[in-house]
Amino acid sequence: MFTATCIAPVNMALVKYWGKRNEELILPINDSVSMTLDANEMCAKTTISASESFKQNRMWLNGEVVPFEENARLMRCVEGIHRLALANGAHKFPLSWKVHIASYNNFPTAAGLASSAAGYACLVYTLARLYDLPMNEELTTIARQGSGSACRSLYGGFVHWQRGTSADGSDSIAVQLAPAEHWPNMHMLILVVNDARKKTGSTKGMQLGVQTSALIQHRAKEVVPQRVKDLIAAIDARDFESFAEITMKESNQLHAICLDTYPPCVYMNDVSHAIANFVHDYNETVGSVQAAYTFDAGPNACLYVLAENVPRLLAAIQLAFPNDASQSVEYLKGIPVPPVEVKNGLRDVSIGHVNAKNMLKYIIHTKIGEGPKQLSDEKSLLIDGYPLTK
Amino acid sequence: MFTATCIAPVNMALVKYWGKRNEELILPINDSVSMTLDANEMCAKTTISASESFKQNRMWLNGEVVPFEENARLMRCVEGIHRLALANGAHKFPLSWKVHIASYNNFPTAAGLASSAAGYACLVYTLARLYDLPMNEELTTIARQGSGSACRSLYGGFVHWQRGTSADGSDSIAVQLAPAEHWPNMHMLILVVNDARKKTGSTKGMQLGVQTSALIQHRAKEVVPQRVKDLIAAIDARDFESFAEITMKESNQLHAICLDTYPPCVYMNDVSHAIANFVHDYNETVGSVQAAYTFDAGPNACLYVLAENVPRLLAAIQLAFPNDASQSVEYLKGIPVPPVEVKNGLRDVSIGHVNAKNMLKYIIHTKIGEGPKQLSDEKSLLIDGYPLTK
Repeated sequence: MFTATCIAPVNMALVKYWGKRNEELILPINDSVSMTLDANEMCAKTTISASESFKQNRMWLNGEVVPFEENARLMRCVEGIHRLALANGAHKFPLSWKVHIASYNNFPTAAGLASSAAGYACLVYTLARLYDLPMNEELTTIARQGSGSACRSLYGGFVHWQRGTSADGSDSIAVQLAPAEHWPNMHMLILVVNDARKKTGSTKGMQLGVQTSALIQHRAKEVVPQRVKDLIAAIDARDFESFAEITMKESNQLHAICLDTYPPCVYMNDVSHAIANFVHDYNETVGSVQAAYTFDAGPNACLYVLAENVPRLLAAIQLAFPNDASQSVEYLKGIPVPPVEVKNGLRDVSIGHVNAKNMLKYIIHTKIGEGPKQLSDEKSLLIDGYPLTK
Repeated sequence: MFTATCIAPVNMALVKYWGKRNEELILPINDSVSMTLDANEMCAKTTISASESFKQNRMWLNGEVVPFEENARLMRCVEGIHRLALANGAHKFPLSWKVHIASYNNFPTAAGLASSAAGYACLVYTLARLYDLPMNEELTTIARQGSGSACRSLYGGFVHWQRGTSADGSDSIAVQLAPAEHWPNMHMLILVVNDARKKTGSTKGMQLGVQTSALIQHRAKEVVPQRVKDLIAAIDARDFESFAEITMKESNQLHAICLDTYPPCVYMNDVSHAIANFVHDYNETVGSVQAAYTFDAGPNACLYVLAENVPRLLAAIQLAFPNDASQSVEYLKGIPVPPVEVKNGLRDVSIGHVNAKNMLKYIIHTKIGEGPKQLSDEKSLLIDGYPLTK
């Protein structure tokens, strides 16, 4: 039996991926750019074992058995790796051996926190380790076919998913723009918002968007290319103000496109909008752009903020969005934040936004992080090819 | 002393006006189309007296003294009428006579119900009556300079405001597409939504939109022209389904553009989106498109619905958005609606949307209506040139 265990990080888009030109190959209508988040706070962890004795491919996700051969996206990733392994020549065991896969997300699945990106990146990376394949751009084209944005979770730091132009998708790859060390004090506060409404899934949402939005193609062709260029320059120069403005405009435009979809897809709620509004007022009050919001296909806010500005921003958030559990470790997750005194101006901006209590479920403090990593065998999720529990 | 008293209706945009190419002359970046609402439920009422004895121009709005000469838009309307009167030759009294103006809205000002459109249309129409000017397209260019959409309130039925191309705005006029009798069973339910948040005013919002939205010019140039054509055809043919789809898409795109503005302008809230979502589900449940929403620069929903479909739609709304006062005359304003039995399917769709109680302030039932009208002198708001109360 051969086994590999790896973790892969979550990534958060800055220039947004929204809309496919090929549903099956998951080819996007525009480039996107993301930042990879530290795996310490959030990651997917996957163990894959291959054995001559396995009768069939099997998979457990968060401890539950899930379909394998029926999952076209999963199969596409496995077959993609098989093709690479064949082309590579060397492999320690026959490709005909079946695999057992166990995967966990250490954060809520489908909470709008890009669990599928980390999950498929981890799957592909772990398969690559199992078959001794080198980490390269071809792996990103395979991860992309599991979940589009998964290709961006194969690198740390800042990552650029290029849409590509070829019909087979071979040039729709992710490349690293800069490693995490380039801008190590880039942190993030994730505000997880209470929300009851059912939402259109992002796959369905972007499909409807491509079919019905009168603005989405204009966005893809005329707006995104310049934004990608400008964002890459801002990252290069570590220019937070430009970085922030592009990021917020991109988030707003994604949700504009969703609203222009028919019937409309609405992912942000009143609390999300209150957070965005708070960020604009906060930046104005402190006199410089110190925070930038971005929202994906859900109501949660991800706020980019430099490490040195985290304590003050968090204090203002706590005032604006009060919570009964505001000081508890269950509420403030992730990297600890030293307390800070809040100045009067900040108190004013925050209090201008106070609505009901407990609008946020919890807050995660995290930062820029590395790409996937292989773990030692004692971290395996499988023992003799089967999950630990069960 | 000479006196004229008139009423003018509210209009509700179907293809939306959003964005000016000339702020001072109020010239829009795209055409818009609206339906005029029955003045029985909502209207502005204005009395204007002119007298040799008046020392200065004065105005009372909803009983309060408001600035006159300092109000550039108001002055522009008065001067526009003076120019027309001069050109017309005949007038009963010298243009140098000062005027006293009293105006009331019989509905909440600035509730997102286009009070300024009715108000300026009434002002210009009443001035025209006072100076014995004929009702024609030139009046619409004057009303437009008070408040853009006011030009559409000078006609009943369906109205088309053409953006025009000339720099002086002389061809940016409103024309009637069809009188109210063309589609007399076109009714409307206005759902007035409880809302606390302060909003960006529509003047400021569209200004910011033109300056910052990366999508607004594409909308104006590439999307709106076809929609105007399609909507005119739908109105001609009394094709409710096409009418409804264009109307809903237009509303969604207006709010998409607002969200793409930087910082974003958000006018719809969670209740607004719940109503839009309810309408889509309602139409699906009844098996044909029977209701169409539109939202302006506020959270209130205006639902277009044919007269015969009002009772059932209203009953479903009452189920989906329950209110403690649901049967009171203060809650259900306007044209009475006979009660109706609700079928199970409707109950299901409605109950799927129920959130908290009392999300709506009240509901107004109204319908397509006529243009402005002059009233007899006993309806005057001024006695000897001064307001009744005071």
